[in-house]
Amino acid sequence: MQFLSDNAAAVHPAVWSAMQAADGAQAPYDNDSLSQSLDARFSEVFGRDCTTIWVASGTAANCLALASMVPPHGAVICHRDAHIEQDECGAPGFFTHGAKLMLAEGVDAKLTPAAMEACIAPIRRDVHRVWPHAVSITQASEAGCVYRPAEVAAIGACAQGHGLKLHMDGARFANAVAHLGCTPAAASCDGGVDVLSFGCVKNGGMSAEALVFFDPALAEDVKYRRKRAGHLQSKGRFLAAQIHALLAGDLWLANARAANAAAAEIAAAVPHRLLHPVEANEVFVTLSPAEKAGLRAQGFGFYDWGETGARFVAAWNCAPADVAALARALAAV
Amino acid sequence: MQFLSDNAAAVHPAVWSAMQAADGAQAPYDNDSLSQSLDARFSEVFGRDCTTIWVASGTAANCLALASMVPPHGAVICHRDAHIEQDECGAPGFFTHGAKLMLAEGVDAKLTPAAMEACIAPIRRDVHRVWPHAVSITQASEAGCVYRPAEVAAIGACAQGHGLKLHMDGARFANAVAHLGCTPAAASCDGGVDVLSFGCVKNGGMSAEALVFFDPALAEDVKYRRKRAGHLQSKGRFLAAQIHALLAGDLWLANARAANAAAAEIAAAVPHRLLHPVEANEVFVTLSPAEKAGLRAQGFGFYDWGETGARFVAAWNCAPADVAALARALAAV
Amino acid sequence: MQFLSDNAAAVHPAVWSAMQAADGAQAPYDNDSLSQSLDARFSEVFGRDCTTIWVASGTAANCLALASMVPPHGAVICHRDAHIEQDECGAPGFFTHGAKLMLAEGVDAKLTPAAMEACIAPIRRDVHRVWPHAVSITQASEAGCVYRPAEVAAIGACAQGHGLKLHMDGARFANAVAHLGCTPAAASCDGGVDVLSFGCVKNGGMSAEALVFFDPALAEDVKYRRKRAGHLQSKGRFLAAQIHALLAGDLWLANARAANAAAAEIAAAVPHRLLHPVEANEVFVTLSPAEKAGLRAQGFGFYDWGETGARFVAAWNCAPADVAALARALAAV
Amino acid sequence: MQFLSDNAAAVHPAVWSAMQAADGAQAPYDNDSLSQSLDARFSEVFGRDCTTIWVASGTAANCLALASMVPPHGAVICHRDAHIEQDECGAPGFFTHGAKLMLAEGVDAKLTPAAMEACIAPIRRDVHRVWPHAVSITQASEAGCVYRPAEVAAIGACAQGHGLKLHMDGARFANAVAHLGCTPAAASCDGGVDVLSFGCVKNGGMSAEALVFFDPALAEDVKYRRKRAGHLQSKGRFLAAQIHALLAGDLWLANARAANAAAAEIAAAVPHRLLHPVEANEVFVTLSPAEKAGLRAQGFGFYDWGETGARFVAAWNCAPADVAALARALAAV
Repeated sequence: MQFLSDNAAAVHPAVWSAMQAADGAQAPYDNDSLSQSLDARFSEVFGRDCTTIWVASGTAANCLALASMVPPHGAVICHRDAHIEQDECGAPGFFTHGAKLMLAEGVDAKLTPAAMEACIAPIRRDVHRVWPHAVSITQASEAGCVYRPAEVAAIGACAQGHGLKLHMDGARFANAVAHLGCTPAAASCDGGVDVLSFGCVKNGGMSAEALVFFDPALAEDVKYRRKRAGHLQSKGRFLAAQIHALLAGDLWLANARAANAAAAEIAAAVPHRLLHPVEANEVFVTLSPAEKAGLRAQGFGFYDWGETGARFVAAWNCAPADVAALARALAAV
Repeated sequence: MQFLSDNAAAVHPAVWSAMQAADGAQAPYDNDSLSQSLDARFSEVFGRDCTTIWVASGTAANCLALASMVPPHGAVICHRDAHIEQDECGAPGFFTHGAKLMLAEGVDAKLTPAAMEACIAPIRRDVHRVWPHAVSITQASEAGCVYRPAEVAAIGACAQGHGLKLHMDGARFANAVAHLGCTPAAASCDGGVDVLSFGCVKNGGMSAEALVFFDPALAEDVKYRRKRAGHLQSKGRFLAAQIHALLAGDLWLANARAANAAAAEIAAAVPHRLLHPVEANEVFVTLSPAEKAGLRAQGFGFYDWGETGARFVAAWNCAPADVAALARALAAV
Repeated sequence: MQFLSDNAAAVHPAVWSAMQAADGAQAPYDNDSLSQSLDARFSEVFGRDCTTIWVASGTAANCLALASMVPPHGAVICHRDAHIEQDECGAPGFFTHGAKLMLAEGVDAKLTPAAMEACIAPIRRDVHRVWPHAVSITQASEAGCVYRPAEVAAIGACAQGHGLKLHMDGARFANAVAHLGCTPAAASCDGGVDVLSFGCVKNGGMSAEALVFFDPALAEDVKYRRKRAGHLQSKGRFLAAQIHALLAGDLWLANARAANAAAAEIAAAVPHRLLHPVEANEVFVTLSPAEKAGLRAQGFGFYDWGETGARFVAAWNCAPADVAALARALAAV
Repeated sequence: MQFLSDNAAAVHPAVWSAMQAADGAQAPYDNDSLSQSLDARFSEVFGRDCTTIWVASGTAANCLALASMVPPHGAVICHRDAHIEQDECGAPGFFTHGAKLMLAEGVDAKLTPAAMEACIAPIRRDVHRVWPHAVSITQASEAGCVYRPAEVAAIGACAQGHGLKLHMDGARFANAVAHLGCTPAAASCDGGVDVLSFGCVKNGGMSAEALVFFDPALAEDVKYRRKRAGHLQSKGRFLAAQIHALLAGDLWLANARAANAAAAEIAAAVPHRLLHPVEANEVFVTLSPAEKAGLRAQGFGFYDWGETGARFVAAWNCAPADVAALARALAAV
């Protein structure tokens, strides 16, 4: 009964099938037909021209995006809890050749225009200071919360007003769109997002994320940067196949809805203990060390979230019985 | 009838099976049991303690190796035709933060102690010059030729005499060992190799290479560097599974023997036209543009090797009929 | 009547004389006798073996120091107001190849062991997080305050306990030592400082800072890094000459005492308006916009420190009449 | 009787005077009047709009120039003997974040369009290869030879045809212009040079080189890059003063003519032993080890140039008696 993370969950059968169908002789790198059709496929999904590449990890997707937006002497504004700040071992510094992350505050791990302005205001505009060139937000956020289209648009407008590019870390973009019930574009590019890390691995994929550029000028160098970072796999067709499989018939949204529903069921059992609204597939709960020990003794796996908190993550394939058991156990603490 | 490259060939059924067996709940990143047992498995294969990580590409393996050996102000001696020089879009410069490659000459794309000495001799030992800190050789070489154990050992001794670490790009290490009929250790670490990029993708794998450190001190930072480069996949068990599958029952050697045999059959048809000895799975042949056009018209796929040459690469799964057909067609030109 | 900064003040006559005496034929780079004797000279000043190089700016000194202490995937703990964070255009990221600065709090722009612990405590010790490898403190601090020997030692002990190296940005080290009346060693290496940026430019020099390594192992690569950063000037004797001139007869301390005394005189005029204790040569004063305008109308030059503050910096050569005039004018507001 | 190098020769009295005149209160960094007037001054010298910054070394000038021209995944074509390849400890790799130098051949250390084409022709235009983005030539060359205006223009045309930017390392640009007797523009920007490292240190300066951008778009980021590399000195007026002093009354050309004349006198003594035409201030002579020992026994200082060669460099202030003595001694060997 694992609720540790969605990042190591099983691979969806349709993804397996698509990968197997991609075997056999094909052109190497991204010269195969599956890779070559990604642009068209994402242009369809987002209703506008997209340039898309596959990479093998969210870190690679995020950092290639940032490197396309920010010079080495620049900075990226992000939330203090952002994955790029907390969980990537300084990868943004590696890919951007030393650009900074500027840390902003915000409830539910969400940025706001006000938080952006608070970052920007004190910066003298001279050569001694590092200036921001981009903003990065996470949809859904590291606290499992979702930016409404209007919130994205407000951030996009603020970014544009300051001449900043806007990146969206969409490791759980599917969960956000499933929650919002809006178009993928409304949750991202319609609000001014320039580059989206479109997550697949946490949502039934194996080893492929899509990096989607809504601003083609930013994509100009990205294929060199990908190659140079060792991320141009020679059997890239197997990555493209995963992405196509998740897009087909909106499997990505179905998977996300299943995970979100499981999280909602868990949350409903402890409404008074929630640390954040549950809008995607993560549930953050106030629990004492003793209570956590008790749950673990019953066989539930989850991460501590500080001393008196816990994080439960639902994956696309959570067993209904496990979810129900967790809900009962939480209600009983 | 494709002989373009082994890098996009089909995935071996045993690799597929191992990957599917690795599905289901497991710890993320490299905390799963398959990843955790790689050190032990390679220590067995090489008869000495090894530290091993998986990565998704040969470029990543090579460049993480080089970054562990060379400071940003240092250099790596390699053959002018080395993959790290010719085919990685400057990735060594990215991973090492700007170290140089020093290009050496050598027949059959093989380095020799003499070529190393010719590189080293003119370098004044002062702070204005870039000094070599490592050597990188390719086994089998970019010309499809194989270093004998004594040749590796001579290079290793030369390297050690100059205080240089020794890296082996083993994208086709299996083919080399299969050709030599020696132990894997004799073809690498016994001769002084410190770090080996142990290739799998060209030999029946999908997306996993093993990076094997024979000198554990060099491996100290490599897990940070891998993470920082976006190469720590969260479902790493699928990479480890591929590697284990190829090692099991020496499948890696069986696959390589099959590819080598196919290359030998092709070479035997045109002994007088060979540009290099055929010792692995690549055949370089003198062919005029008209002769090449004729072969292509018969349905054979291959790369030009300059205007009057062609490269034919045999993969682990070449169809015997295709190989025979190519041999006949070549004999007939 | 300029109190904008000490960083552009006149060059001391003894420095000019020493530079002129260094003209004529000499060996290039740092092979001249003046450069070659820096190690011995600083070993004398600090009472222990030192490795010392000259560079042309405080930024270069600080960042070469940090690069010697921290791998690209590591971090440096520093105060939020530190020069390396606020005023070097991301130079630490450039010289360290992307290492992070971790920002700590502290009154008077001074770090404390408690602030260090607060930075370190939340960091999970795994490969996903950036870990600190060093600490950097500024003596005197960016608020013009001075670390007592016991404070340095407490930070040094905390650093050592966590395996962190300790750097001291001593752009105004002279002012700090002059204030403390202790030995240079007591204000730095006795408390555990591993590398000191020993400032000269703000204290009567022209274009030379000394970078002093108390831990010779850290200095191993620094001459390559200096050359590689374009900081090995061919007529380096002129930089060494400046440093020797300031050390001769403790001119560096006499200059600093003069600047400190001027600052003390200014501070004494407005004791109730001081934002920070005045311990070196900087005076931070609460002043309304109207009051600042009034002072400027009288011919005083100084920087705003936020809307309702101002910074006055005294240089080694402040005219007593100017200082007295400023003191009177401040007392009168 | 030193002929080791011009890089450590004395500072010209006019340079000293200008530096002393620049002392006293001035705005810091490059906000002083001398720094602010460099653009106008160089625009005058070159007869077109220039953007100019000072830096403290030729390495810094060259590498900031290259970083403005080439992305990290790109390359710079240069001669195998170029200073940026041979004598800068990999600084181009540091400033460009890992771009490559592609080494071309050419007599007298001079590039030609044919040599450039030979570099470019074999490069497949795909993402696996490093592509050149710029060319760098040295005026006068590392063999003391001078590019004629038509030669520069031919290289410039070739560069433009391939979309490459053109950098000129003018550490001895003064010597080249003095030799040619043409305008500075004819020797550089008229032929297509985009950025010029205008050398002063080897020509009577102390610690200032001018970096001159003829293409203002390339200068966009250079002030950030300079600051970030620790090269924005706070008392920058002393660097600007040196440059202005050398330009005033064409002192730079007078100094260069004096050095060239001394070299010519030396060369005239051994016309049959010259390794390269003597067109600037360097004389390369065939000399056996015994002959070199003999000259050194007479008190002459110079560098070996391989086992059977020697390099003699004349500075702006060579004593006529020393020059005559060397000429006699050489004629006598």
